[in-house]
Amino acid sequence: MSEHCTPVSPVRIAVIQYDPQVGLENCDGNLSKGLALARCAAREGANLIVLPELANTGYTFHTRAEAYAHAETLEEGRSLKAWADFAREYQVYLAAGFAEREGLKLYDSAVLFGPQGLLGHYRKAHLWNQEKLWFTPGDLGFPVFETPIGRIGLLICWDIWFPEVPRLMAAQGADIICSLNNWVWTPPPLFDEAGRCMASYLTMTAAHANNVYIAAANRIGSERGGRFLGCSLIADTSGWPIGEVASAEEECILYADVDLSSARSAPIWNSLNDLPRDRRTDLYDATLGYRLHAPMPR
Amino acid sequence: MSEHCTPVSPVRIAVIQYDPQVGLENCDGNLSKGLALARCAAREGANLIVLPELANTGYTFHTRAEAYAHAETLEEGRSLKAWADFAREYQVYLAAGFAEREGLKLYDSAVLFGPQGLLGHYRKAHLWNQEKLWFTPGDLGFPVFETPIGRIGLLICWDIWFPEVPRLMAAQGADIICSLNNWVWTPPPLFDEAGRCMASYLTMTAAHANNVYIAAANRIGSERGGRFLGCSLIADTSGWPIGEVASAEEECILYADVDLSSARSAPIWNSLNDLPRDRRTDLYDATLGYRLHAPMPR
Repeated sequence: MSEHCTPVSPVRIAVIQYDPQVGLENCDGNLSKGLALARCAAREGANLIVLPELANTGYTFHTRAEAYAHAETLEEGRSLKAWADFAREYQVYLAAGFAEREGLKLYDSAVLFGPQGLLGHYRKAHLWNQEKLWFTPGDLGFPVFETPIGRIGLLICWDIWFPEVPRLMAAQGADIICSLNNWVWTPPPLFDEAGRCMASYLTMTAAHANNVYIAAANRIGSERGGRFLGCSLIADTSGWPIGEVASAEEECILYADVDLSSARSAPIWNSLNDLPRDRRTDLYDATLGYRLHAPMPR
Repeated sequence: MSEHCTPVSPVRIAVIQYDPQVGLENCDGNLSKGLALARCAAREGANLIVLPELANTGYTFHTRAEAYAHAETLEEGRSLKAWADFAREYQVYLAAGFAEREGLKLYDSAVLFGPQGLLGHYRKAHLWNQEKLWFTPGDLGFPVFETPIGRIGLLICWDIWFPEVPRLMAAQGADIICSLNNWVWTPPPLFDEAGRCMASYLTMTAAHANNVYIAAANRIGSERGGRFLGCSLIADTSGWPIGEVASAEEECILYADVDLSSARSAPIWNSLNDLPRDRRTDLYDATLGYRLHAPMPR
Protein backbone atom coordinates (compact mmCIF):
# COMPACT_ATOMS: atom_id res chain seq x y z
CA MET A 1 0.00 0.00 0.00
CA SER A 2 0.96 3.60 -0.36
CA GLU A 3 3.16 5.50 2.01
CA HIS A 4 0.47 8.19 2.02
CA CYS A 5 -1.95 8.26 4.92
CA THR A 6 -4.96 8.61 2.64
CA PRO A 7 -5.01 6.34 -0.42
CA VAL A 8 -4.60 8.44 -3.54
CA SER A 9 -6.29 5.90 -5.76
CA PRO A 10 -8.13 3.35 -3.65
CA VAL A 11 -9.33 0.55 -5.89
CA ARG A 12 -11.16 -2.65 -5.07
CA ILE A 13 -10.08 -5.11 -7.71
CA ALA A 14 -12.31 -8.08 -8.52
CA VAL A 15 -11.09 -10.97 -10.65
CA ILE A 16 -13.84 -13.23 -11.94
CA GLN A 17 -13.27 -16.94 -12.53
CA TYR A 18 -16.07 -18.86 -14.23
CA ASP A 19 -16.81 -21.29 -17.01
CA PRO A 20 -17.87 -19.85 -20.37
CA GLN A 21 -18.83 -22.51 -22.91
CA VAL A 22 -18.22 -22.35 -26.64
CA GLY A 23 -21.19 -22.57 -29.02
CA LEU A 24 -23.46 -19.88 -30.41
CA GLU A 25 -26.30 -21.21 -28.29
CA ASN A 26 -24.20 -20.49 -25.18
CA CYS A 27 -23.07 -16.94 -25.92
CA ASP A 28 -26.05 -15.26 -24.29
CA GLY A 29 -25.55 -17.36 -21.19
CA ASN A 30 -21.82 -16.69 -21.10
CA LEU A 31 -22.38 -12.96 -21.33
CA SER A 32 -25.10 -12.83 -18.70
CA LYS A 33 -23.20 -15.15 -16.36
CA GLY A 34 -20.10 -12.93 -16.53
CA LEU A 35 -22.23 -9.84 -15.98
CA ALA A 36 -24.06 -11.42 -13.05
CA LEU A 37 -20.75 -12.15 -11.35
CA ALA A 38 -19.51 -8.66 -12.20
CA ARG A 39 -22.70 -7.28 -10.62
CA CYS A 40 -21.97 -9.23 -7.43
CA ALA A 41 -18.49 -7.76 -7.42
CA ALA A 42 -19.75 -4.22 -8.02
CA ARG A 43 -22.22 -4.61 -5.16
CA GLU A 44 -19.30 -5.64 -2.98
CA GLY A 45 -17.66 -2.36 -3.85
CA ALA A 46 -15.32 -3.52 -6.62
CA ASN A 47 -14.54 -0.80 -9.13
CA LEU A 48 -12.00 -2.59 -11.34
CA ILE A 49 -13.42 -5.89 -12.55
CA VAL A 50 -11.56 -8.38 -14.73
CA LEU A 51 -13.26 -11.11 -16.79
CA PRO A 52 -11.27 -13.83 -18.59
CA GLU A 53 -10.13 -14.12 -22.21
CA LEU A 54 -12.99 -14.84 -24.64
CA ALA A 55 -15.39 -14.31 -21.76
CA ASN A 56 -18.52 -14.30 -23.89
CA THR A 57 -17.73 -16.97 -26.49
CA GLY A 58 -15.87 -19.82 -24.82
CA TYR A 59 -12.57 -20.93 -26.23
CA THR A 60 -12.37 -24.13 -28.23
CA PHE A 61 -13.59 -23.36 -31.72
CA HIS A 62 -13.60 -26.25 -34.17
CA THR A 63 -13.42 -24.32 -37.41
CA ARG A 64 -12.57 -20.89 -38.64
CA ALA A 65 -16.17 -20.48 -39.69
CA GLU A 66 -17.28 -21.16 -36.14
CA ALA A 67 -14.81 -18.67 -34.71
CA TYR A 68 -16.03 -16.14 -37.26
CA ALA A 69 -19.64 -16.68 -36.24
CA HIS A 70 -18.77 -16.04 -32.58
CA ALA A 71 -16.93 -12.80 -33.28
CA GLU A 72 -18.16 -9.23 -32.78
CA THR A 73 -16.91 -5.93 -34.07
CA LEU A 74 -15.50 -3.35 -31.72
CA GLU A 75 -18.08 -0.82 -32.87
CA GLU A 76 -21.26 -2.90 -32.98
CA GLY A 77 -20.74 -5.95 -30.80
CA ARG A 78 -23.64 -6.69 -28.50
CA SER A 79 -21.37 -8.03 -25.76
CA LEU A 80 -19.35 -4.86 -25.97
CA LYS A 81 -22.50 -2.78 -25.70
CA ALA A 82 -23.56 -4.79 -22.64
CA TRP A 83 -20.16 -4.34 -21.00
CA ALA A 84 -20.14 -0.62 -21.79
CA ASP A 85 -23.63 -0.25 -20.31
CA PHE A 86 -22.57 -2.17 -17.21
CA ALA A 87 -19.49 0.00 -16.65
CA ARG A 88 -21.57 3.16 -16.99
CA GLU A 89 -24.44 1.91 -14.84
CA TYR A 90 -22.22 0.68 -12.01
CA GLN A 91 -19.55 3.37 -12.45
CA VAL A 92 -16.78 0.78 -12.65
CA TYR A 93 -13.86 -0.17 -14.86
CA LEU A 94 -14.41 -3.50 -16.60
CA ALA A 95 -11.88 -5.51 -18.62
CA ALA A 96 -13.17 -8.39 -20.74
CA GLY A 97 -11.99 -10.63 -23.56
CA PHE A 98 -13.89 -11.27 -26.77
CA ALA A 99 -13.44 -12.60 -30.31
CA GLU A 100 -13.06 -9.52 -32.48
CA ARG A 101 -13.91 -9.29 -36.15
CA GLU A 102 -12.52 -6.47 -38.27
CA GLY A 103 -13.35 -6.93 -41.91
CA LEU A 104 -12.30 -10.48 -42.68
CA LYS A 105 -9.80 -10.70 -39.85
CA LEU A 106 -10.39 -12.14 -36.40
CA TYR A 107 -8.46 -11.14 -33.30
CA ASP A 108 -8.35 -12.51 -29.76
CA SER A 109 -9.00 -9.16 -28.11
CA ALA A 110 -9.64 -7.39 -24.86
CA VAL A 111 -11.44 -4.18 -24.04
CA LEU A 112 -11.45 -1.87 -21.06
CA PHE A 113 -14.62 0.08 -20.34
CA GLY A 114 -15.06 2.78 -17.76
CA PRO A 115 -17.95 4.98 -16.71
CA GLN A 116 -16.90 7.23 -19.60
CA GLY A 117 -17.07 4.48 -22.25
CA LEU A 118 -14.31 2.61 -24.09
CA LEU A 119 -10.90 3.34 -22.59
CA GLY A 120 -8.73 0.58 -23.98
CA HIS A 121 -8.50 -2.00 -26.74
CA TYR A 122 -5.83 -4.67 -27.14
CA ARG A 123 -5.31 -7.55 -29.57
CA LYS A 124 -3.44 -10.62 -28.33
CA ALA A 125 0.06 -10.55 -29.76
CA HIS A 126 1.24 -14.05 -28.84
CA LEU A 127 -1.24 -16.66 -30.02
CA TRP A 128 -1.47 -20.07 -28.37
CA ASN A 129 -1.92 -23.33 -30.26
CA GLN A 130 -5.03 -23.48 -32.48
CA GLU A 131 -5.71 -19.80 -31.92
CA LYS A 132 -3.21 -19.49 -34.76
CA LEU A 133 -5.78 -21.16 -37.00
CA TRP A 134 -8.53 -18.64 -36.29
CA PHE A 135 -6.95 -15.40 -35.20
CA THR A 136 -4.55 -12.87 -36.68
CA PRO A 137 -1.69 -11.94 -34.34
CA GLY A 138 -2.34 -8.63 -32.62
CA ASP A 139 -1.10 -5.46 -34.28
CA LEU A 140 -1.65 -2.85 -31.58
CA GLY A 141 1.61 -3.22 -29.65
CA PHE A 142 1.38 -3.32 -25.86
CA PRO A 143 -0.49 -0.14 -24.96
CA VAL A 144 -1.10 1.21 -21.49
CA PHE A 145 -4.25 3.24 -20.99
CA GLU A 146 -4.54 6.36 -18.86
CA THR A 147 -7.67 6.28 -16.73
CA PRO A 148 -8.87 8.30 -13.75
CA ILE A 149 -7.90 5.46 -11.40
CA GLY A 150 -4.44 4.90 -12.89
CA ARG A 151 -2.57 3.47 -15.88
CA ILE A 152 -3.92 0.10 -16.98
CA GLY A 153 -2.37 -2.42 -19.36
CA LEU A 154 -4.16 -5.40 -20.88
CA LEU A 155 -2.51 -8.69 -21.77
CA ILE A 156 -3.94 -12.02 -22.79
CA CYS A 157 -2.76 -15.43 -21.59
CA TRP A 158 0.33 -16.63 -23.55
CA ASP A 159 1.53 -13.02 -23.69
CA ILE A 160 2.91 -13.28 -20.17
CA TRP A 161 5.24 -16.11 -21.19
CA PHE A 162 7.20 -13.33 -22.91
CA PRO A 163 8.81 -11.13 -20.26
CA GLU A 164 9.03 -8.33 -22.80
CA VAL A 165 5.29 -7.74 -22.40
CA PRO A 166 5.08 -6.75 -18.73
CA ARG A 167 8.44 -4.99 -19.16
CA LEU A 168 7.05 -2.83 -21.95
CA MET A 169 3.94 -2.04 -19.93
CA ALA A 170 6.00 -1.11 -16.88
CA ALA A 171 8.15 1.06 -19.11
CA GLN A 172 5.01 2.98 -20.01
CA GLY A 173 4.20 3.46 -16.37
CA ALA A 174 1.49 0.84 -15.93
CA ASP A 175 0.13 0.74 -12.39
CA ILE A 176 -1.77 -2.48 -12.99
CA ILE A 177 -1.90 -5.08 -15.72
CA CYS A 178 -5.20 -6.86 -16.27
CA SER A 179 -4.27 -10.37 -17.41
CA LEU A 180 -7.16 -12.11 -19.19
CA ASN A 181 -6.62 -15.84 -19.56
CA ASN A 182 -7.79 -19.19 -20.71
CA TRP A 183 -4.81 -21.02 -19.18
CA VAL A 184 -4.66 -24.62 -20.30
CA TRP A 185 -2.23 -27.48 -19.89
CA THR A 186 1.45 -26.71 -19.51
CA PRO A 187 4.10 -29.39 -19.06
CA PRO A 188 3.64 -31.27 -15.78
CA PRO A 189 3.59 -30.89 -12.92
CA LEU A 190 0.59 -28.63 -13.34
CA PHE A 191 0.31 -27.73 -9.68
CA ASP A 192 2.82 -27.72 -6.89
CA GLU A 193 2.32 -28.25 -3.19
CA ALA A 194 1.30 -24.60 -2.85
CA GLY A 195 -1.58 -25.21 -5.32
CA ARG A 196 -0.02 -22.91 -7.89
CA CYS A 197 0.83 -23.49 -11.55
CA MET A 198 3.65 -22.07 -13.67
CA ALA A 199 1.27 -19.36 -14.89
CA SER A 200 0.87 -18.28 -11.26
CA TYR A 201 4.63 -17.88 -11.00
CA LEU A 202 4.96 -16.07 -14.32
CA THR A 203 2.36 -13.63 -13.01
CA MET A 204 4.05 -13.24 -9.63
CA THR A 205 7.56 -12.72 -10.98
CA ALA A 206 6.37 -10.31 -13.67
CA ALA A 207 4.68 -8.23 -10.97
CA HIS A 208 7.75 -8.41 -8.73
CA ALA A 209 10.38 -7.60 -11.37
CA ASN A 210 8.33 -4.73 -12.77
CA ASN A 211 6.80 -3.33 -9.57
CA VAL A 212 3.30 -3.51 -11.01
CA TYR A 213 0.01 -5.01 -9.85
CA ILE A 214 -1.26 -7.87 -11.98
CA ALA A 215 -4.89 -9.00 -11.78
CA ALA A 216 -5.12 -12.33 -13.56
CA ALA A 217 -8.53 -13.83 -14.35
CA ASN A 218 -8.63 -17.37 -15.71
CA ARG A 219 -11.55 -19.59 -16.59
CA ILE A 220 -12.33 -23.01 -15.22
CA GLY A 221 -14.14 -26.03 -16.59
CA SER A 222 -13.75 -28.32 -19.56
CA GLU A 223 -14.67 -27.75 -23.16
CA ARG A 224 -14.50 -30.16 -26.09
CA GLY A 225 -11.84 -32.27 -24.38
CA GLY A 226 -9.68 -29.41 -23.09
CA ARG A 227 -9.42 -28.44 -19.45
CA PHE A 228 -8.76 -25.06 -17.92
CA LEU A 229 -6.69 -24.37 -14.88
CA GLY A 230 -8.38 -21.75 -12.76
CA CYS A 231 -5.68 -20.44 -10.41
CA SER A 232 -6.73 -16.83 -10.89
CA LEU A 233 -4.79 -14.46 -8.69
CA ILE A 234 -4.06 -10.84 -7.89
CA ALA A 235 -0.36 -10.14 -7.45
CA ASP A 236 0.86 -7.24 -5.36
CA THR A 237 3.69 -5.07 -6.68
CA SER A 238 5.93 -7.26 -4.50
CA GLY A 239 4.88 -10.22 -6.62
CA TRP A 240 3.13 -12.09 -3.83
CA PRO A 241 -0.55 -12.89 -4.22
CA ILE A 242 -2.97 -10.72 -2.28
CA GLY A 243 -5.06 -13.32 -0.54
CA GLU A 244 -5.46 -16.77 -2.03
CA VAL A 245 -4.73 -18.13 -5.46
CA ALA A 246 -8.07 -19.45 -6.72
CA SER A 247 -8.67 -23.18 -7.00
CA ALA A 248 -8.49 -25.04 -10.29
CA GLU A 249 -12.15 -26.01 -10.10
CA GLU A 250 -14.40 -23.47 -8.43
CA GLU A 251 -16.21 -20.48 -9.77
CA CYS A 252 -15.17 -17.52 -7.64
CA ILE A 253 -14.53 -13.82 -7.32
CA LEU A 254 -11.19 -12.72 -5.87
CA TYR A 255 -10.96 -9.28 -4.30
CA ALA A 256 -8.06 -7.03 -3.40
CA ASP A 257 -8.11 -3.55 -1.92
CA VAL A 258 -5.13 -1.56 -3.13
CA ASP A 259 -3.97 1.97 -3.67
CA LEU A 260 -3.02 1.79 -7.34
CA SER A 261 -0.86 4.88 -6.95
CA SER A 262 1.49 2.86 -4.75
CA ALA A 263 2.89 1.27 -7.93
CA ARG A 264 4.50 4.64 -8.66
CA SER A 265 6.74 4.39 -5.62
CA ALA A 266 9.90 2.33 -5.93
CA PRO A 267 10.02 -0.93 -4.00
CA ILE A 268 11.58 -0.44 -0.61
CA TRP A 269 14.76 -2.45 -1.16
CA ASN A 270 17.39 -0.16 0.29
CA SER A 271 18.79 3.29 -0.47
CA LEU A 272 21.01 2.09 -3.32
CA ASN A 273 18.81 -0.05 -5.56
CA ASP A 274 16.04 0.99 -7.90
CA LEU A 275 14.82 -1.44 -10.54
CA PRO A 276 14.58 0.99 -13.48
CA ARG A 277 17.82 2.75 -12.59
CA ASP A 278 19.67 -0.53 -12.19
CA ARG A 279 18.82 -1.73 -15.69
CA ARG A 280 21.97 -2.06 -17.81
CA THR A 281 20.61 -0.91 -21.14
CA ASP A 282 24.19 -0.29 -22.23
CA LEU A 283 24.95 -3.98 -21.89
CA TYR A 284 21.60 -5.13 -23.26
CA ASP A 285 22.47 -3.10 -26.33
CA ALA A 286 25.99 -4.46 -26.48
CA THR A 287 24.89 -8.06 -26.10
CA LEU A 288 22.91 -8.80 -29.25
CA GLY A 289 21.19 -5.45 -29.34
CA TYR A 290 18.48 -6.19 -26.78
CA ARG A 291 17.28 -2.88 -25.51
CA LEU A 292 14.59 -0.64 -24.22
CA HIS A 293 15.25 2.82 -25.57
CA ALA A 294 13.05 4.86 -23.30
CA PRO A 295 13.83 5.09 -19.62
CA MET A 296 11.17 3.84 -17.26
CA PRO A 297 9.12 6.85 -16.24
CA ARG A 298 9.10 6.29 -12.49
CA MET B 1 15.67 -35.25 -20.56
CA SER B 2 16.52 -35.73 -24.19
CA GLU B 3 14.36 -37.49 -26.71
CA HIS B 4 17.49 -39.43 -27.70
CA CYS B 5 17.94 -42.93 -26.28
CA THR B 6 21.53 -42.25 -25.27
CA PRO B 7 22.17 -38.91 -23.57
CA VAL B 8 24.27 -36.73 -25.84
CA SER B 9 25.67 -34.69 -23.00
CA PRO B 10 25.00 -36.41 -19.69
CA VAL B 11 25.93 -34.07 -16.89
CA ARG B 12 25.63 -34.46 -13.15
CA ILE B 13 25.16 -30.97 -11.80
CA ALA B 14 26.08 -30.20 -8.20
CA VAL B 15 25.08 -26.96 -6.52
CA ILE B 16 26.91 -26.21 -3.31
CA GLN B 17 25.31 -24.29 -0.47
CA TYR B 18 27.56 -23.31 2.43
CA ASP B 19 28.54 -20.45 4.67
CA PRO B 20 31.63 -18.42 3.68
CA GLN B 21 32.57 -15.77 6.22
CA VAL B 22 34.04 -12.39 5.45
CA GLY B 23 37.43 -11.45 6.92
CA LEU B 24 40.96 -12.02 5.64
CA GLU B 25 41.51 -14.53 8.40
CA ASN B 26 38.64 -16.61 6.99
CA CYS B 27 39.56 -16.67 3.32
CA ASP B 28 41.70 -19.81 3.53
CA GLY B 29 38.90 -21.59 5.34
CA ASN B 30 36.25 -20.39 2.88
CA LEU B 31 38.30 -21.62 -0.04
CA SER B 32 39.12 -25.00 1.44
CA LYS B 33 35.54 -25.50 2.66
CA GLY B 34 34.17 -24.86 -0.80
CA LEU B 35 36.74 -27.17 -2.33
CA ALA B 36 36.03 -29.90 0.21
CA LEU B 37 32.35 -29.81 -0.70
CA ALA B 38 33.23 -29.72 -4.39
CA ARG B 39 35.44 -32.78 -3.82
CA CYS B 40 32.49 -34.61 -2.23
CA ALA B 41 30.41 -33.71 -5.26
CA ALA B 42 33.08 -34.83 -7.72
CA ARG B 43 33.38 -38.15 -5.88
CA GLU B 44 29.63 -38.54 -6.28
CA GLY B 45 30.11 -38.17 -10.00
CA ALA B 46 29.26 -34.50 -10.43
CA ASN B 47 31.02 -32.90 -13.37
CA LEU B 48 29.46 -29.42 -13.32
CA ILE B 49 29.84 -27.88 -9.88
CA VAL B 50 28.52 -24.48 -8.86
CA LEU B 51 29.78 -22.50 -5.85
CA PRO B 52 28.06 -19.28 -4.68
CA GLU B 53 28.90 -15.65 -5.34
CA LEU B 54 32.02 -14.44 -3.47
CA ALA B 55 32.64 -18.04 -2.45
CA ASN B 56 36.11 -17.45 -1.07
CA THR B 57 35.74 -14.05 0.58
CA GLY B 58 32.35 -13.84 2.22
CA TYR B 59 30.08 -10.96 1.40
CA THR B 60 29.66 -8.13 3.88
CA PHE B 61 32.65 -5.85 3.51
CA HIS B 62 32.74 -2.83 5.79
CA THR B 63 35.02 -0.58 3.78
CA ARG B 64 36.33 -0.29 0.29
CA ALA B 65 39.80 -0.96 1.66
CA GLU B 66 38.59 -4.23 3.12
CA ALA B 67 36.97 -5.29 -0.15
CA TYR B 68 40.20 -4.38 -1.93
CA ALA B 69 42.22 -6.52 0.45
CA HIS B 70 39.98 -9.53 -0.21
CA ALA B 71 40.21 -9.25 -3.99
CA GLU B 72 42.34 -11.31 -6.37
CA THR B 73 43.36 -10.76 -9.96
CA LEU B 74 42.13 -13.06 -12.68
CA GLU B 75 45.69 -13.91 -13.64
CA GLU B 76 47.34 -14.42 -10.26
CA GLY B 77 44.62 -15.10 -7.72
CA ARG B 78 45.38 -17.97 -5.41
CA SER B 79 41.73 -19.00 -5.17
CA LEU B 80 41.55 -19.04 -8.93
CA LYS B 81 44.66 -21.19 -9.11
CA ALA B 82 43.15 -23.61 -6.58
CA TRP B 83 39.88 -23.79 -8.53
CA ALA B 84 41.75 -24.32 -11.80
CA ASP B 85 43.83 -27.10 -10.22
CA PHE B 86 40.69 -28.70 -8.85
CA ALA B 87 38.91 -28.68 -12.21
CA ARG B 88 41.94 -30.22 -13.90
CA GLU B 89 42.57 -32.81 -11.20
CA TYR B 90 38.93 -33.97 -11.02
CA GLN B 91 38.19 -33.37 -14.71
CA VAL B 92 35.15 -31.28 -13.90
CA TYR B 93 33.63 -27.92 -14.75
CA LEU B 94 33.60 -25.57 -11.77
CA ALA B 95 31.88 -22.18 -11.51
CA ALA B 96 32.79 -19.95 -8.58
CA GLY B 97 32.40 -16.34 -7.51
CA PHE B 98 35.23 -14.12 -6.28
CA ALA B 99 36.12 -10.48 -5.67
CA GLU B 100 38.16 -9.45 -8.69
CA ARG B 101 40.75 -6.71 -8.78
CA GLU B 102 41.90 -5.24 -12.08
CA GLY B 103 44.17 -2.28 -11.59
CA LEU B 104 42.33 -0.08 -9.13
CA LYS B 105 38.89 -1.45 -9.96
CA LEU B 106 37.04 -4.17 -8.12
CA TYR B 107 34.40 -6.40 -9.70
CA ASP B 108 31.99 -8.95 -8.26
CA SER B 109 33.01 -11.70 -10.66
CA ALA B 110 32.56 -15.33 -11.58
CA VAL B 111 34.81 -17.78 -13.35
CA LEU B 112 34.22 -21.09 -15.07
CA PHE B 113 37.08 -23.58 -15.07
CA GLY B 114 37.20 -26.86 -16.95
CA PRO B 115 39.77 -29.62 -17.27
CA GLN B 116 41.30 -27.43 -19.98
CA GLY B 117 41.65 -24.36 -17.77
CA LEU B 118 39.74 -21.07 -17.72
CA LEU B 119 36.67 -21.22 -19.94
CA GLY B 120 34.60 -18.29 -18.78
CA HIS B 121 34.78 -15.00 -16.93
CA TYR B 122 31.88 -12.73 -16.04
CA ARG B 123 31.55 -9.51 -14.05
CA LYS B 124 28.27 -8.85 -12.25
CA ALA B 125 26.33 -6.25 -14.20
CA HIS B 126 23.57 -5.44 -11.71
CA LEU B 127 25.02 -4.58 -8.33
CA TRP B 128 23.00 -4.98 -5.14
CA ASN B 129 23.00 -2.48 -2.28
CA GLN B 130 26.44 -1.79 -0.76
CA GLU B 131 28.16 -3.70 -3.54
CA LYS B 132 27.80 -0.36 -5.32
CA LEU B 133 30.22 1.07 -2.77
CA TRP B 134 32.96 -1.46 -3.49
CA PHE B 135 32.50 -2.80 -6.98
CA THR B 136 32.42 -1.39 -10.49
CA PRO B 137 29.42 -2.55 -12.54
CA GLY B 138 30.37 -5.37 -14.90
CA ASP B 139 31.54 -4.47 -18.38
CA LEU B 140 31.64 -7.84 -20.11
CA GLY B 141 28.02 -8.09 -21.28
CA PHE B 142 26.25 -11.41 -20.74
CA PRO B 143 28.49 -13.94 -22.45
CA VAL B 144 27.74 -17.61 -22.99
CA PHE B 145 30.73 -19.94 -23.08
CA GLU B 146 31.11 -22.89 -25.42
CA THR B 147 32.40 -25.94 -23.59
CA PRO B 148 32.63 -29.63 -24.45
CA ILE B 149 29.56 -30.35 -22.30
CA GLY B 150 27.44 -27.50 -23.69
CA ARG B 151 26.95 -23.74 -23.66
CA ILE B 152 27.19 -22.24 -20.20
CA GLY B 153 26.20 -18.77 -19.03
CA LEU B 154 27.14 -17.21 -15.70
CA LEU B 155 25.01 -14.74 -13.79
CA ILE B 156 25.29 -13.35 -10.30
CA CYS B 157 22.43 -12.82 -7.86
CA TRP B 158 20.57 -9.52 -8.57
CA ASP B 159 21.17 -10.09 -12.30
CA ILE B 160 18.22 -12.49 -12.45
CA TRP B 161 15.83 -9.77 -11.28
CA PHE B 162 16.31 -8.40 -14.81
CA PRO B 163 14.61 -10.75 -17.29
CA GLU B 164 16.84 -9.39 -20.03
CA VAL B 165 19.75 -11.40 -18.61
CA PRO B 166 18.45 -14.95 -19.02
CA ARG B 167 16.80 -13.81 -22.27
CA LEU B 168 20.13 -12.68 -23.68
CA MET B 169 21.80 -15.89 -22.60
CA ALA B 170 19.07 -18.01 -24.17
CA ALA B 171 19.40 -15.93 -27.32
CA GLN B 172 23.02 -17.02 -27.46
CA GLY B 173 22.01 -20.64 -27.13
CA ALA B 174 22.81 -21.23 -23.47
CA ASP B 175 22.02 -24.79 -22.39
CA ILE B 176 22.52 -23.98 -18.73
CA ILE B 177 22.95 -20.85 -16.67
CA CYS B 178 25.02 -21.11 -13.52
CA SER B 179 23.50 -18.65 -11.08
CA LEU B 180 25.91 -17.69 -8.27
CA ASN B 181 24.20 -15.97 -5.39
CA ASN B 182 24.32 -14.36 -2.02
CA TRP B 183 20.55 -13.91 -1.81
CA VAL B 184 19.57 -11.72 1.09
CA TRP B 185 16.38 -10.19 2.39
CA THR B 186 13.66 -9.29 -0.09
CA PRO B 187 10.34 -7.76 0.90
CA PRO B 188 8.28 -10.16 3.02
CA PRO B 189 7.01 -12.76 2.97
CA LEU B 190 10.43 -14.30 2.52
CA PHE B 191 9.17 -17.86 2.18
CA ASP B 192 5.84 -19.25 1.17
CA GLU B 193 4.13 -22.46 2.22
CA ALA B 194 6.21 -24.35 -0.35
CA GLY B 195 9.41 -23.17 1.39
CA ARG B 196 10.43 -21.09 -1.60
CA CYS B 197 11.39 -17.43 -1.86
CA MET B 198 10.87 -14.93 -4.69
CA ALA B 199 14.40 -15.71 -5.92
CA SER B 200 13.30 -19.34 -6.34
CA TYR B 201 10.45 -18.19 -8.56
CA LEU B 202 12.58 -15.79 -10.57
CA THR B 203 14.90 -18.74 -11.23
CA MET B 204 12.06 -21.10 -12.13
CA THR B 205 10.24 -18.71 -14.46
CA ALA B 206 13.49 -17.65 -16.17
CA ALA B 207 14.24 -21.32 -16.87
CA HIS B 208 10.70 -21.95 -18.07
CA ALA B 209 10.33 -18.90 -20.31
CA ASN B 210 13.75 -19.44 -21.87
CA ASN B 211 13.87 -23.24 -22.01
CA VAL B 212 17.21 -23.35 -20.23
CA TYR B 213 18.54 -25.16 -17.18
CA ILE B 214 19.45 -22.91 -14.26
CA ALA B 215 21.67 -24.17 -11.45
CA ALA B 216 21.41 -21.65 -8.62
CA ALA B 217 23.82 -21.83 -5.69
CA ASN B 218 23.17 -19.57 -2.74
CA ARG B 219 24.96 -19.27 0.56
CA ILE B 220 23.53 -19.65 4.04
CA GLY B 221 24.39 -18.21 7.42
CA SER B 222 24.68 -14.77 8.94
CA GLU B 223 27.42 -12.22 8.58
CA ARG B 224 27.79 -8.87 10.31
CA GLY B 225 24.07 -8.61 10.93
CA GLY B 226 22.90 -9.79 7.49
CA ARG B 227 21.24 -13.11 6.87
CA PHE B 228 21.34 -15.26 3.74
CA LEU B 229 18.47 -17.26 2.39
CA GLY B 230 19.76 -20.60 1.18
CA CYS B 231 17.01 -21.96 -1.11
CA SER B 232 19.51 -23.13 -3.72
CA LEU B 233 17.86 -25.03 -6.54
CA ILE B 234 18.35 -26.59 -9.94
CA ALA B 235 15.56 -25.72 -12.37
CA ASP B 236 14.75 -27.97 -15.29
CA THR B 237 14.10 -26.41 -18.71
CA SER B 238 10.42 -26.69 -17.78
CA GLY B 239 11.11 -24.35 -14.88
CA TRP B 240 10.28 -26.83 -12.15
CA PRO B 241 12.99 -27.70 -9.62
CA ILE B 242 14.72 -31.01 -10.10
CA GLY B 243 14.41 -32.50 -6.65
CA GLU B 244 14.09 -30.26 -3.64
CA VAL B 245 14.72 -26.59 -3.12
CA ALA B 246 17.39 -26.40 -0.41
CA SER B 247 16.51 -25.20 3.06
CA ALA B 248 17.27 -21.70 4.27
CA GLU B 249 19.59 -23.01 6.98
CA GLU B 250 21.48 -26.16 6.10
CA GLU B 251 24.76 -26.69 4.31
CA CYS B 252 24.07 -29.06 1.44
CA ILE B 253 24.88 -30.27 -2.03
CA LEU B 254 22.04 -30.55 -4.55
CA TYR B 255 22.45 -32.92 -7.47
CA ALA B 256 20.68 -33.26 -10.80
CA ASP B 257 21.36 -35.68 -13.63
CA VAL B 258 20.47 -34.09 -16.94
CA ASP B 259 21.27 -34.31 -20.61
CA LEU B 260 22.32 -30.70 -21.25
CA SER B 261 21.69 -31.17 -24.96
CA SER B 262 17.98 -31.48 -24.24
CA ALA B 263 17.88 -27.69 -23.84
CA ARG B 264 18.36 -27.50 -27.61
CA SER B 265 15.00 -29.14 -28.27
CA ALA B 266 11.92 -26.97 -28.13
CA PRO B 267 9.55 -27.51 -25.21
CA ILE B 268 6.83 -29.96 -26.12
CA TRP B 269 3.88 -27.59 -26.06
CA ASN B 270 2.03 -28.52 -29.21
CA SER B 271 2.71 -28.41 -32.95
CA LEU B 272 1.96 -24.70 -33.29
CA ASN B 273 3.93 -22.98 -30.54
CA ASP B 274 7.64 -22.39 -30.24
CA LEU B 275 8.94 -19.83 -27.76
CA PRO B 276 11.57 -18.18 -29.98
CA ARG B 277 9.34 -18.22 -33.06
CA ASP B 278 6.42 -16.78 -31.14
CA ARG B 279 8.36 -13.74 -29.99
CA ARG B 280 6.90 -10.54 -31.48
CA THR B 281 10.08 -8.60 -32.07
CA ASP B 282 8.14 -6.44 -34.51
CA LEU B 283 5.90 -5.24 -31.68
CA TYR B 284 8.72 -5.05 -29.15
CA ASP B 285 10.40 -2.70 -31.60
CA ALA B 286 7.24 -0.74 -32.21
CA THR B 287 6.45 -0.35 -28.52
CA LEU B 288 9.24 1.84 -27.18
CA GLY B 289 11.95 0.14 -29.19
CA TYR B 290 12.42 -2.88 -26.95
CA ARG B 291 14.02 -5.57 -29.07
CA LEU B 292 16.33 -8.46 -29.50
CA HIS B 293 17.88 -8.14 -32.94
CA ALA B 294 19.25 -11.60 -33.38
CA PRO B 295 16.90 -14.54 -33.68
CA MET B 296 17.27 -17.22 -31.04
CA PRO B 297 19.49 -19.90 -32.53
CA ARG B 298 17.33 -22.92 -31.74
